[in-house]
Amino acid sequence: MGKLLIVGTVAFDAIETPFGKTDKILGGAATYIGLSASNFGIDSGVVSVVGEDFPQEHLDLLTEHNVNIDGIEIVKGGKTFFWSGKYHNDMNSRDTLVTELNVLADFDPVVPAAYQNADVVMLGNLHPFVQMRVIEQVKNPKLIVLDTMNFWMDSALEELKQVIAKVDVITINDEEARQLSGEYSLVKAAREIEKMGPKYVVIKKGEHGALLFHDDKMFFAPALPLEEVFDPTGAGDTFAGGFSGYLAKTEDYSFKNMKNAIIYGSNLASFCVEKFGTERMESLDKKEVEERLEQFKKLTQFKIELS
Amino acid sequence: MGKLLIVGTVAFDAIETPFGKTDKILGGAATYIGLSASNFGIDSGVVSVVGEDFPQEHLDLLTEHNVNIDGIEIVKGGKTFFWSGKYHNDMNSRDTLVTELNVLADFDPVVPAAYQNADVVMLGNLHPFVQMRVIEQVKNPKLIVLDTMNFWMDSALEELKQVIAKVDVITINDEEARQLSGEYSLVKAAREIEKMGPKYVVIKKGEHGALLFHDDKMFFAPALPLEEVFDPTGAGDTFAGGFSGYLAKTEDYSFKNMKNAIIYGSNLASFCVEKFGTERMESLDKKEVEERLEQFKKLTQFKIELS
Repeated sequence: MGKLLIVGTVAFDAIETPFGKTDKILGGAATYIGLSASNFGIDSGVVSVVGEDFPQEHLDLLTEHNVNIDGIEIVKGGKTFFWSGKYHNDMNSRDTLVTELNVLADFDPVVPAAYQNADVVMLGNLHPFVQMRVIEQVKNPKLIVLDTMNFWMDSALEELKQVIAKVDVITINDEEARQLSGEYSLVKAAREIEKMGPKYVVIKKGEHGALLFHDDKMFFAPALPLEEVFDPTGAGDTFAGGFSGYLAKTEDYSFKNMKNAIIYGSNLASFCVEKFGTERMESLDKKEVEERLEQFKKLTQFKIELS
Repeated sequence: MGKLLIVGTVAFDAIETPFGKTDKILGGAATYIGLSASNFGIDSGVVSVVGEDFPQEHLDLLTEHNVNIDGIEIVKGGKTFFWSGKYHNDMNSRDTLVTELNVLADFDPVVPAAYQNADVVMLGNLHPFVQMRVIEQVKNPKLIVLDTMNFWMDSALEELKQVIAKVDVITINDEEARQLSGEYSLVKAAREIEKMGPKYVVIKKGEHGALLFHDDKMFFAPALPLEEVFDPTGAGDTFAGGFSGYLAKTEDYSFKNMKNAIIYGSNLASFCVEKFGTERMESLDKKEVEERLEQFKKLTQFKIELS
């Protein structure tokens, strides 16, 4: 059983979907990654920053899920990062209403000594400068996984490329893969991105599933078709948490095992969207995850005898 | 080994994609369905209509692929149905430039005696009136599969609903499923459509794969990620031909076997888009189809041991 280091935002979100809206609730990439990875019973720790306005109960929630919070800096007098967004009717697109960086603006991450020897490093969506500072502090990680987004491709491409050159796996969505590579075909896009550094490329297609590429190999995990998607917030982070958490648990970084990891990522993400914010992930238990794995098998596994 | 009856257009297409454009070439739903189904070595026959302008070599092509053309009426002095379309850069949307119904306008199909006892009836995209006239002429088919599109939902909804009530399987795309059911969630949409008659609902998502629904069961087949899609024309018909052809060959109409059928539909459709028009399907051989089946297995099959 390996050790997982997570870096990412711990934040407030205010979310509006066709099903309703929330006040400021717990959010942030590292929060979702941590809650998701906690399903594997591994030793995981978060590096992040919050303000003095951040409720202790949110930190306690992570602790209760066995996510170590020693690496979460609390800035005196500071205000926590806040994001607010509104989803369109199709749930696949959203408008950002508010982004207040607050304490995130000057964040220089410090990895606690106990997590500098992490086996797996999960770099959640954040400024590439922060991600690089974390990479510099870890000693011989077995696997570094990077999640990022188009915002950094637009605003900090050179710094992002330096991070991409140092990671083993990158997870981005289909439009971001096209933007980063300049290729429309996802097969070609993945090949171009592999040339930038990562040996494995995961392309997330939201409700259309996720693709894993490695050399000339491909694997696909569908999203579980659901009766209702209440709130997509955090689904990508939850996917990343399931992916990296499963790999840390199994300590097997082969392509074959990464297939299982993206199935687990999709599995956990399918829960995340069932309720607003982190609500569904907070109450998830092992039996539910195993039952859903059976649903994924039924959804995808077939047996054809050639004649 | 069962017998397959196919009804649909046999036509001229002129296609423009970002990769080039064609003059008037062989097209039509029944053409693609027939070529696709021919990969299963079954007895299949097409019911359709063409004008006197239709080249004998196109009819010969079907005959060479063991597709019986006795049911293709040639209208003296008539002109063949012509469609022209231009695909956008994303290849997922297109504009129809020209639609000339010609001989299709007055088509009243006659099913040859030898195909009135077909085991599987594949109703390709056509006016629901024509589809119903074919249903009326077949005796105790084991399975009727309907392919249709939004054009008929807009222009002939009541006639379409009467056809839907009489079929076992319907194949439509995701937007059409939403339009027909009034439900955004595809899980809910499929449930509503099952109430209209079909026991099985196949929702085609183009490059995002296809879903099969039956009662509370679901199965998903991805599209094979390709380096380049040259021309999506006929991909949906080719899928339908693979689906219905495999079922006619195996004569097993269970949910379990329909999973295999949509894998074969996806398999064959993945070839169709590799070249313009019917070109790729004309030269396809069994070995290529079997090799691609292996690619589909590698793309989707996984093995997770719970611990």
